[in-house]
Amino acid sequence: MIDLFLVGIGTGDPEHLTLGAIRTLEGADLILLPRKGGEKADLLDLRKTICTDVLRASVRVAEFDMPVRDASGTYLDGVNSWHDAIAAEWTRQIEAHLPGGSGRVALMVWGDPSLYDSTLRIAERLSAAGTQVRTHVVPGITSLQLLTAAHAIPLNTLGGPVTITTGRKLREGGWPSGAERMAVMLDGDCAFLELPRDGLHIWWGAYLGMAQQILDAGAVAECGARIREARGTARAEHGWIMDTYLLEYR
Amino acid sequence: MIDLFLVGIGTGDPEHLTLGAIRTLEGADLILLPRKGGEKADLLDLRKTICTDVLRASVRVAEFDMPVRDASGTYLDGVNSWHDAIAAEWTRQIEAHLPGGSGRVALMVWGDPSLYDSTLRIAERLSAAGTQVRTHVVPGITSLQLLTAAHAIPLNTLGGPVTITTGRKLREGGWPSGAERMAVMLDGDCAFLELPRDGLHIWWGAYLGMAQQILDAGAVAECGARIREARGTARAEHGWIMDTYLLEYR
Repeated sequence: MIDLFLVGIGTGDPEHLTLGAIRTLEGADLILLPRKGGEKADLLDLRKTICTDVLRASVRVAEFDMPVRDASGTYLDGVNSWHDAIAAEWTRQIEAHLPGGSGRVALMVWGDPSLYDSTLRIAERLSAAGTQVRTHVVPGITSLQLLTAAHAIPLNTLGGPVTITTGRKLREGGWPSGAERMAVMLDGDCAFLELPRDGLHIWWGAYLGMAQQILDAGAVAECGARIREARGTARAEHGWIMDTYLLEYR
Repeated sequence: MIDLFLVGIGTGDPEHLTLGAIRTLEGADLILLPRKGGEKADLLDLRKTICTDVLRASVRVAEFDMPVRDASGTYLDGVNSWHDAIAAEWTRQIEAHLPGGSGRVALMVWGDPSLYDSTLRIAERLSAAGTQVRTHVVPGITSLQLLTAAHAIPLNTLGGPVTITTGRKLREGGWPSGAERMAVMLDGDCAFLELPRDGLHIWWGAYLGMAQQILDAGAVAECGARIREARGTARAEHGWIMDTYLLEYR
């Protein structure tokens, strides 16, 4: 039996790690470390830093190349075969490094494994493919929490609801009737600029919790174009960007 | 100038603490520790345990009695005057223990200060009342993250939105059209039982991350009454309960 631990590590600052995350990683027999290609080498380096600088125990680490997503078909088909390929790669690594078929395997997950992350769905495929596996989750701080912390604001209005969604959904569906606040993740290109601007307020952040962190906030009518420009400049400079934002109509 | 640090501590297990939370608490000149009356003495004890067992530095701690909320008027009026009273109590404690009017003051916040927590709104009142204060937030693991971790499920469907709301809002507004999943917090009495049950699925948890943790999940038609009973029994046994749940129509 494999015990698979999906460990949320926050967004790049080792100070985001919880004591539980550290204890779980230190107790693992194997840590799987995905290599994601040139642009995101920073992110692999951050995970390596955790292994070398934060963990007090020496744990066996297996680096592997992440399969590449096929963007030629539909979005969902592409994602599903990509997850299959990743699960097959995990299985190969586990068989190579834990040939007895038992042990504690850990994966470091950006943010928290519960929020717009595929690791839980990939883990399900291991059982389906015949590996005996028990999955455990150790929560981590999300970029959304770092956004509200950096701006020192609550996510919700007093006792009010908040919807978390993606740039894709916001672009497709617009502002849902009855929504008070929307938090948007995984937005490749400033979907908030397509909403009616009258009364729309934004709290925006990129590289949250990292040395490169950038923040901006205000009425979209005033700061929307400024955010798009800062985003483009930062992306060109660093080769990648991760950002998230909270919206409210006032 | 007072630097006020609102530090998320997770939900009762010291293992939820991040390295950043620990460093912030250890570096404080004063930790304010609210006493909440008989029933919730467990929660004060957990905060004390963090001070005595986790922090490696000795930090001055000021315990104070939390003002009691007046439930006689409207909900919002009651909450607003309650927050005023708490802010006044913080100010008294800070003036008594840091008479120079400067230093680093920390408060331990259940879960994360951004999610259904009043600490940020109370902190705003300090500036309004004339105290020079800069507010800083250190995020912590929320009960919602512990819920999804305990059930080893994602919060969102694949690329789908999720709405976080309260039992009060769910009872008032029902299931919003277009919502895929709803996470419900601060529900005093199983609001999910008032929704149409056909196809409604629930993942429920109480005392999440604590020794008393209880979990249940399934079709509400099958497990709804069982959850209500377990909730009532646990509340009677421990004198208090905190629970949260995730809903989906399938």
